[in-house]
Amino acid sequence: MAISKRVKDALEGASWVRRMFEEGEELKQLHGEENVYDFSIGNPNLEPPSSLKKALKELADNPIAGMHRYMPNSGYSETRKAIAEYLTEETGLRFEEKNVVMTVGAAGGLNVVFKSILDEGEEIIVPSPYFMEFRFYIENCGGRIRLVQTNDDFSLNLKEIEKAIGARTKAVLVNTPHNPTGVVYDKESLMGLSELLKAKSRELKKTLYLISDEAYRRIVYDGIELPMIFHYYPHTIRVTSHSKDLSLPGERIGYIAVGPECEDFDELISALVFANRTLGFVNAPALMQRLVAPLQRNSVKVKDYEEKRDLLYHSLKEFGYDVVKPQGAFYIFPKTIIEDDVVFVKELQSKRILTVPGRGFGKPGYFRISYAVEKRVIEGALPGFKEVAKKYRLIGK
Amino acid sequence: MAISKRVKDALEGASWVRRMFEEGEELKQLHGEENVYDFSIGNPNLEPPSSLKKALKELADNPIAGMHRYMPNSGYSETRKAIAEYLTEETGLRFEEKNVVMTVGAAGGLNVVFKSILDEGEEIIVPSPYFMEFRFYIENCGGRIRLVQTNDDFSLNLKEIEKAIGARTKAVLVNTPHNPTGVVYDKESLMGLSELLKAKSRELKKTLYLISDEAYRRIVYDGIELPMIFHYYPHTIRVTSHSKDLSLPGERIGYIAVGPECEDFDELISALVFANRTLGFVNAPALMQRLVAPLQRNSVKVKDYEEKRDLLYHSLKEFGYDVVKPQGAFYIFPKTIIEDDVVFVKELQSKRILTVPGRGFGKPGYFRISYAVEKRVIEGALPGFKEVAKKYRLIGK
Repeated sequence: MAISKRVKDALEGASWVRRMFEEGEELKQLHGEENVYDFSIGNPNLEPPSSLKKALKELADNPIAGMHRYMPNSGYSETRKAIAEYLTEETGLRFEEKNVVMTVGAAGGLNVVFKSILDEGEEIIVPSPYFMEFRFYIENCGGRIRLVQTNDDFSLNLKEIEKAIGARTKAVLVNTPHNPTGVVYDKESLMGLSELLKAKSRELKKTLYLISDEAYRRIVYDGIELPMIFHYYPHTIRVTSHSKDLSLPGERIGYIAVGPECEDFDELISALVFANRTLGFVNAPALMQRLVAPLQRNSVKVKDYEEKRDLLYHSLKEFGYDVVKPQGAFYIFPKTIIEDDVVFVKELQSKRILTVPGRGFGKPGYFRISYAVEKRVIEGALPGFKEVAKKYRLIGK
Repeated sequence: MAISKRVKDALEGASWVRRMFEEGEELKQLHGEENVYDFSIGNPNLEPPSSLKKALKELADNPIAGMHRYMPNSGYSETRKAIAEYLTEETGLRFEEKNVVMTVGAAGGLNVVFKSILDEGEEIIVPSPYFMEFRFYIENCGGRIRLVQTNDDFSLNLKEIEKAIGARTKAVLVNTPHNPTGVVYDKESLMGLSELLKAKSRELKKTLYLISDEAYRRIVYDGIELPMIFHYYPHTIRVTSHSKDLSLPGERIGYIAVGPECEDFDELISALVFANRTLGFVNAPALMQRLVAPLQRNSVKVKDYEEKRDLLYHSLKEFGYDVVKPQGAFYIFPKTIIEDDVVFVKELQSKRILTVPGRGFGKPGYFRISYAVEKRVIEGALPGFKEVAKKYRLIGK
């Protein structure tokens, strides 16, 4: 066989997001792109803030000698300092340059973290439904993903997490705001998780890490504030990116921030820098490191996403869908009215609406709508969502 | 233990390049940066060609809507087409968009290739001396590196390669122009290697791949032309980047090109795109993909590197060093006059000259000089190289 067996198996499993994307392309060819409502991929439709565009123009007009050369594998000192300052301001804890490692997006950052901490067969606990790429990232580094179900409202089920923690556990991975549900974990649940991790670390006589994927951190609604996990659990590794807050997903710019009180801090940082280098990332893209440094307090117009959330959420409720109100990210994860989420998603496809079945996130019986799209796409799709609800008699004809 | 055992071991082994870099930093603090001659890292000193700067300015002045968004994991269609056109022109073979996968530099590209093709325990044959990161890239993906010695002039030793090929062999990896020796493999040796791979593929009843790391492809001297491996061996995967030809190493922009007649072509490409996604690269940086597309025929002033090669090579010869004349890249790899390369490199350090001992490339008894530096650095270091030669009585006092 030409290619790796593991990759071949994975290809045959294929990604549901990808599959929907491809079927969507066919639909678009058939009906014209304007007439297909594509909610399949989380690809921010908003432009970066004008401050980013301005910074790019300034740099292009006044190039700095050597600005495209290699820098240390952890990134530019100036960028890491700017982020550390922001984190210090945000958390009240003492973040310094050494706490920050610049990465090729959050996906790169997660691979770097897993490579740094995982030995063969060690486990990362992940609440499910979950972003399925996590499985690949963990398995790339010889680890195993251990899924635990969340509560019905997608909040953390601490009892389930407790049951899953054992001798093989290396870390718990949380993603908040959450893909695919849009849920934001509240202070109480994160405090509970922290207490649990502390107790289990004592019991197991090793420090469990908490990895927090906060790629959607700045995309939150209803004026809520995202709790600071760093306040509750010192052995926290935050992985994030500027893909969503600055709308730069194609540029692959993100970072890892390690809590100042994290155990074995120096060794962990050395491992992260080593993994960043040897996994082939080498360093985060130079130009983007320079651009994002002064923009740590900037972001896209989150209100725009919130309006779309509101429009979609209220309409789906009105049509009779059973759905948890998202408080962040740009996903909504309703129940499919019928049991089979693939059949349901196909039904939506017949209305030229592209979504992803819940089984693409480990949760059959649900479907994900990514609303990082133009408003007209949502408006155009509402009649279709309504008709499908009617068909399954959720609402009267 | 907090971090992965494998990573911990690797950290303790450390990279010689890195170690020299760190000792160099101390020297610089002591003597002032101006007075330390740093040949340790291959970090191109030349600025990108003006065409690149112009393209960046044009794009910054006229941003394109959505230009920072995700695109397909293989990269922009326009960029892949532009590269395919260039490859068609260069090779006379029919390269199309589908033959090209954009990557996060050549280091990212190599990790993607190894992930795509390697099953646990399969071997990649690598001629030594070699760029030591290859070992990590291969082991990241469950493979094993199988080193074979080259001839004394660092040309390929086909007999040794033949002996090393067996049931576990998946591919041979060549790097030409070569890091750390600057050697360029000639047509005859590549034809010989191709014949060997064809014969062995028949014998083993499986197709062996040839992976060609051509990151230094455009950096060649004396008017020589680099042979086209694609002409000799159809199952060739070329991995390269714009780190050297356009001096963009910090931007992480490169690509994989698969020969049009490569076996299991479609499956291999699918695997590469999957690996690019799931290793966490996701895609090559968007902005750089756009910039490099029209610059496939551009490059930095190679003449500048050639002059430095000439100055260094002739001076070292004059001082009595035993050295193979490099025909490409920006490295020169002389014998250390004494047996112990670490002692020798320390001796050079005492003259404030930073180089890397040959054991950092699997070849004790040699040392690497990276001359991608300002001319004044070479000129400043020549007396030191001479004194060390004198000390070891290579030349008269």
